[in-house]
Amino acid sequence: MPVEWAGLGPELLLALDRSRGEPLRAQLERELREAIRSGRLAAGERLPSSRALAAELGLSRGLVLECYGQLQAEGFLTSRSGSATRVAVNAAAASVRPMRAAAAAEPRLTVDFLAGVPDLTSFPRRDWAWALREACRDATPSELGYGDPGGLESLRGVLAGYLRRVRGAVAEPERVVLCSGFAQGINLVLHSLAESGIQRVAIEDPGDDEYQVICGRAGMEAVPVAIDERGIDVDALAASGARAVILTPTHQFPTGTALASERRQALVRWANEQEATIVEDDYDAEFRYDRDPVGALQGLAPERVALIGTVSKSLAPSLRLGWVLCPVRLLEAVTEEKRISDRGSPGLEQLALARLIESGRFDRHLRHMRRVYASRRDTLLDALRERAPAVALHGLAAGFHAVAQLSDGADEEAVVAEARSRSVGLYGMGMYRLSAREGPPQLVLGFGNLTEPAIERGIAAIADLL
Amino acid sequence: MPVEWAGLGPELLLALDRSRGEPLRAQLERELREAIRSGRLAAGERLPSSRALAAELGLSRGLVLECYGQLQAEGFLTSRSGSATRVAVNAAAASVRPMRAAAAAEPRLTVDFLAGVPDLTSFPRRDWAWALREACRDATPSELGYGDPGGLESLRGVLAGYLRRVRGAVAEPERVVLCSGFAQGINLVLHSLAESGIQRVAIEDPGDDEYQVICGRAGMEAVPVAIDERGIDVDALAASGARAVILTPTHQFPTGTALASERRQALVRWANEQEATIVEDDYDAEFRYDRDPVGALQGLAPERVALIGTVSKSLAPSLRLGWVLCPVRLLEAVTEEKRISDRGSPGLEQLALARLIESGRFDRHLRHMRRVYASRRDTLLDALRERAPAVALHGLAAGFHAVAQLSDGADEEAVVAEARSRSVGLYGMGMYRLSAREGPPQLVLGFGNLTEPAIERGIAAIADLL
Repeated sequence: MPVEWAGLGPELLLALDRSRGEPLRAQLERELREAIRSGRLAAGERLPSSRALAAELGLSRGLVLECYGQLQAEGFLTSRSGSATRVAVNAAAASVRPMRAAAAAEPRLTVDFLAGVPDLTSFPRRDWAWALREACRDATPSELGYGDPGGLESLRGVLAGYLRRVRGAVAEPERVVLCSGFAQGINLVLHSLAESGIQRVAIEDPGDDEYQVICGRAGMEAVPVAIDERGIDVDALAASGARAVILTPTHQFPTGTALASERRQALVRWANEQEATIVEDDYDAEFRYDRDPVGALQGLAPERVALIGTVSKSLAPSLRLGWVLCPVRLLEAVTEEKRISDRGSPGLEQLALARLIESGRFDRHLRHMRRVYASRRDTLLDALRERAPAVALHGLAAGFHAVAQLSDGADEEAVVAEARSRSVGLYGMGMYRLSAREGPPQLVLGFGNLTEPAIERGIAAIADLL
Repeated sequence: MPVEWAGLGPELLLALDRSRGEPLRAQLERELREAIRSGRLAAGERLPSSRALAAELGLSRGLVLECYGQLQAEGFLTSRSGSATRVAVNAAAASVRPMRAAAAAEPRLTVDFLAGVPDLTSFPRRDWAWALREACRDATPSELGYGDPGGLESLRGVLAGYLRRVRGAVAEPERVVLCSGFAQGINLVLHSLAESGIQRVAIEDPGDDEYQVICGRAGMEAVPVAIDERGIDVDALAASGARAVILTPTHQFPTGTALASERRQALVRWANEQEATIVEDDYDAEFRYDRDPVGALQGLAPERVALIGTVSKSLAPSLRLGWVLCPVRLLEAVTEEKRISDRGSPGLEQLALARLIESGRFDRHLRHMRRVYASRRDTLLDALRERAPAVALHGLAAGFHAVAQLSDGADEEAVVAEARSRSVGLYGMGMYRLSAREGPPQLVLGFGNLTEPAIERGIAAIADLL
């Protein structure tokens, strides 16, 4: 039996295992700490002399003395010269408290039409591993240190070019602040606006209810403003008294409409007159099926629009890489927010993204994904046409979610609940309506992370409910 | 000559280049946008008919119409049925404003004794690239999505084991919240404490003055509390009325002392009595030269201490990976802060760090770096002994900075300024003193990112000043 037990008073047992690679001293220290924390060695209790313990455990006295010294330095033991070593009074308070029980797991869905998740199986693992390898090889020492909190120069240059080319944006490298995805970007911009005295921010209704939380944390009030089939109601926006607005102009989330041309112009007029800021959430701009993507609103008014983009939809959410294309007047504040928040985004991933874009692999992946999503979109259309022909789909020109119009009088929540009992995840428009106002019964159907057979199975399972 | 110029009214010229890979339509759109932004096409100006422009440029009329349609959708052009296409009124406001001039570059230092920077040339590129490749290969689809904002389960388990083993911490995986380095960790914890009603936070003096900024942003007051050669003055802490304190117990920054055993116990007693929180900045705990690293204070009082660690010193700052080991009562708040801030840290890097630790490569790297830093430390000691024997060095038991005691009456700032004129970066203790109180003249000498010859050169260049 390799384990040796040493009795230390009536209860304490110390287990040392000489067959393990771990040094005996480390084992002894750990065992003593555990004994104190668990209360087996009580506060004030006297330890055996180093000589006695060494003899009992078959260790050198020097080793036991070192061990006592270490635990004394850490505050577990006390020792006055000439008197015995004892367990410190406060160390006993360190006993481990029970952890929270894990929340009961949700029943598993076989098909989940949750919106906002891209196809996670298509992530270009090889290309990204290649880009990371290049980054690890080529990073300069200073790129491995604490750099410019706004991001590495090389990526800012490459991104600026990409945003000019693909999004029609006004993008000098100096305007780009790297961040870890949209969530951080909106925090940086909102805190900067709050610092400049802005207290009220308009948000789209229906829209993401998370904005209310984020605005609240920045000390601002979020005011929902209704949208219709042409996008946000600019007159209502003007009447709201907001000096900033968060928008999804290219593909409104969740209704899927694009902001109409005359609304774009009215918005820019409002922003110029009110010296207001438009925060453009450019989340899935890369995926448009009927024509070229509509250029970013930022391209029309770069000094009034902060554009926030991300690779969460184009590559994978877990990369946590995004950018803010800033009006010049906000640049310093947004960069300082980034510095205080986390001192900048990871360097190697920035270099890797620059390599991926420069090498053309990013564009190639986007072209591939446009075909993948277009095909899933067609599958969804076909499945509904076949099994629930009365249901109209909207918002399908871009991205990877759509809105299904249910028949008048249908009960959104009942449909969602019944689908869930059949292991299909459906989501009603109700969860995105921010004001109390009622709306027509609708479902928001995400299809980005569902294979074509899964889409067909899912629709087949719930078509009778629609 | 491949470039064709089309005159559009007196000033406007559009350049299309048929020899480039870029489609002509994309070129035409870009050129028109630029012309509008630059003001070459003014607000309200009438564009040629699609037929006329197509003839002039040798393009199909359909292509020009598509292009006009695109720019109209983006808000650059207006068109009413039956009338001409014109430049939209607000589009002209989008002209590019000049960017900030870059700040004048600091004169370059040939040797910089700035503290807090590890050896950037020793970053284990191959090991990290290997770990990232494994991560890219093995990540499950759900690990590529939006995951638990507290971090991936696999890394939390590995880190908990590491912190138990190396830092003597009480570390269950559920207690670990991944974050992007110390800066974010302290933000998460302070905002959580502020939410729970804590308004006053004690900080070490001398110490990092950045804490005052971060506390201020969280709506709290930072109160400097003096430290002496045994660490923070716990009586002064108790008198400050603070309900939280930020500490560097293992290797105080910048003085380099370790918190004495009886102070550790007094601190824990204070925290228990006041139900206060100790935030432990465990920044360079891995590097101790005279003995095993002193265990984390967290191990003594896991429900009163939030330990924040990072790989910034052990691997590289630009990885931006860190962790908070949380008291159970703060776990939910800290995780929610993380979720709202950025929805979680990058997934592949988390998997890579787990692989690096599990494989033993992380420990091997630490052992290697301990030798590297010990050797640089000896070089610094030798150089000073030889060239400025009157200067005493303190705080060298751990980490990679030390404090040099100047002779009484020496002028810190004058020494720093004169060294800078010799291209050597020195830093006085004065920049870390938070209260107005004077202190003995001292320098904080970082030697982590300096080779041994550079340390010798640097000391030789400024020894006469000390």
